[in-house]
Amino acid sequence: MTDFARTKSMFHLPEGVIYLDGNSLGPLPKAATARVARTVQDEWGEMLITGWNKAGWMALPSSTGDRIARLIGAAPGTVVMGDTLSIKVYQALASALEMNPERRVILSDTGNFPSDLYIADGLVRTLGDGYELRTVAPEEVLEAIDATVAVTLITEVDYRTGRRHDMKAITEKAHAAGAIAVWDLAHSAGAVPVDLAGCDVDFAVGCTYKYLNSGPGGPAFIYVAPKHAETARPALSGWLGHEAPFAFDLDYRPGRGIERMRVGTPPILQLAALDASLDIWDLADMADVRAKSIELTQLFIELVEAACPALALASPRDPAIRGSQVSFRHAQGYAIMQALIARGVIGDFRAPDILRFGFTPLYIGEEEVRGAVAILKEIMDGNLWDRPEYKTRARVT
Amino acid sequence: MTDFARTKSMFHLPEGVIYLDGNSLGPLPKAATARVARTVQDEWGEMLITGWNKAGWMALPSSTGDRIARLIGAAPGTVVMGDTLSIKVYQALASALEMNPERRVILSDTGNFPSDLYIADGLVRTLGDGYELRTVAPEEVLEAIDATVAVTLITEVDYRTGRRHDMKAITEKAHAAGAIAVWDLAHSAGAVPVDLAGCDVDFAVGCTYKYLNSGPGGPAFIYVAPKHAETARPALSGWLGHEAPFAFDLDYRPGRGIERMRVGTPPILQLAALDASLDIWDLADMADVRAKSIELTQLFIELVEAACPALALASPRDPAIRGSQVSFRHAQGYAIMQALIARGVIGDFRAPDILRFGFTPLYIGEEEVRGAVAILKEIMDGNLWDRPEYKTRARVT
Repeated sequence: MTDFARTKSMFHLPEGVIYLDGNSLGPLPKAATARVARTVQDEWGEMLITGWNKAGWMALPSSTGDRIARLIGAAPGTVVMGDTLSIKVYQALASALEMNPERRVILSDTGNFPSDLYIADGLVRTLGDGYELRTVAPEEVLEAIDATVAVTLITEVDYRTGRRHDMKAITEKAHAAGAIAVWDLAHSAGAVPVDLAGCDVDFAVGCTYKYLNSGPGGPAFIYVAPKHAETARPALSGWLGHEAPFAFDLDYRPGRGIERMRVGTPPILQLAALDASLDIWDLADMADVRAKSIELTQLFIELVEAACPALALASPRDPAIRGSQVSFRHAQGYAIMQALIARGVIGDFRAPDILRFGFTPLYIGEEEVRGAVAILKEIMDGNLWDRPEYKTRARVT
Repeated sequence: MTDFARTKSMFHLPEGVIYLDGNSLGPLPKAATARVARTVQDEWGEMLITGWNKAGWMALPSSTGDRIARLIGAAPGTVVMGDTLSIKVYQALASALEMNPERRVILSDTGNFPSDLYIADGLVRTLGDGYELRTVAPEEVLEAIDATVAVTLITEVDYRTGRRHDMKAITEKAHAAGAIAVWDLAHSAGAVPVDLAGCDVDFAVGCTYKYLNSGPGGPAFIYVAPKHAETARPALSGWLGHEAPFAFDLDYRPGRGIERMRVGTPPILQLAALDASLDIWDLADMADVRAKSIELTQLFIELVEAACPALALASPRDPAIRGSQVSFRHAQGYAIMQALIARGVIGDFRAPDILRFGFTPLYIGEEEVRGAVAILKEIMDGNLWDRPEYKTRARVT
């Protein structure tokens, strides 16, 4: 049984803050401070270039990838870290399209995170030749999979509503129709149990700065199913994905298995922070995390609906098809969120009208849920959001 | 006049080490330790998600880009940071090819860093349709530019020999032939004065962990000439390159100018380290750096040739066509470099037979040059490299 009191004690959480935005940027694992400082001073400072060997830098993208693999139902040796999620989406898509050369359609949905759609659109334009990005409503994905679809590109959990796709059903339908299934786990990894191997997923990608708490701009991951790992051609074929990077051959030969999905020099300071965060994840069982996440999200919905009738639930009521976040709609959502943040309850706002709250059992419990709702109720009862400074200030994120 | 004693005092250089590998991984700026710690603890730890605004994280890729722009002859607002050099090569190449749709040839040379060639090869395979990567010997680039060439992809300074291409002549010839010029500044930025604007370069890319001392896996940069900045289509079209990333529109609209070349979420810990390093670079004048670099490389060549006749100069003798490194060839180069490293002189080895030494005036002076040659002479005179452990140990870098 995961000891959530222990995992909570391993995070730095600022005084007076209830942090319900770990689905956007996870908080600082206390050990990351020393881990990053060691990487800077003892490794970069003292070992200099020899850190690539002596400090194990070159192995970090694989060793951290293996630890993430456990959380997403993947075998060791099938996940590697690097770049950003957008880049990994491109890499997976381009590789997948090439495995299905007779077809021209990438199928996605309008609930996908825009960057996935932008990247797919960019790839389609680069390819020309009749390639097409086709988007349908999230509810229509399953029936839209037909014999024209080369690749499905679906984000399992909707970033706005938390609605969760049926990974197994969509992947099965994709395969039955002769398509390759690419899954984006941005709001799944560390949020819900994922079974990539059991669902026979072909490619998966995800980021680590949300539920996996690797810090701002932490690296992304990519998974390639073992059955494709020795044949997939990495469209972004960088030197560290070469079979022998330090032979400096002029011709590209893909590395063994998932290693070929490396591209350039890995970001060691970010990987060090991720490594420290994964020490906490090593203590967690995803089934326990999921059970507590459902408890917290159910409680939050129940309390908010009782206390704040003006807020309309935007997330599925059924926890089976909901990720680890809860969203409510309100025409003044932006101002309400600003008022919450001013009072130490940090969630976020997604245009046009969504208030988004993430529930992350490693460091959030019932006390935080009740505290957040009490403050939300005060704001709604007193119209405390109705102040110019909450309505006009531009926020970047 | 740049005060090199002052700049040297701002780096952490381990006791007993003569570091001639700053062309591979620059040493730690002392201030980077506190700068990164502040980013981890005071920003990530205390501000959490609000750090994107409050701590200025979202602006870092542009503000650090502007500081690098000064070092490479580019105007403010023409350089942005992100990803790795390999990714930025892909982005520049794909965008450039699209500006020249009637042509199919990427011209590069066999002295280019292999990752550039791998990436170009990968792009050519993704595009199909007759696209071709054509490579010639470094000396033959100028005459190989003809009316079939869509894009030239040239690394200004050869990573093995330090041989420097004529950026102005090649770019002029490329333009005269109707081609787009893409330059890789991996071994130029912070090493030699670069005049991107004066040479009318179309695209340039580079990394920051070498002469710019941003630490292991520091982010890359991309430059787009102002005349192309509002028309170039970023093939890697990620959400942070969108005109309004936080509108979460379903359709991609490129951002203003160079901002469109952003892709995913920027690596803030690595950017913090870069930012600290650029505080030192702000004190430096590239003309002074170049003058001292020539002094140091000339002295090194002279001393090594006098002391170690078995080593054959692999770099151009004329400093005008040499970057800020000196390379020598020896059949036992690998073992010799291991013997040097064991004695605290850190350079590196590049297959098959190159000993490579980087000269970085911000922290290397005549004393280090003389010290390194004295140790090299001892090793060569005594055949001290001829030991099994120097010949067999596998090194990653």
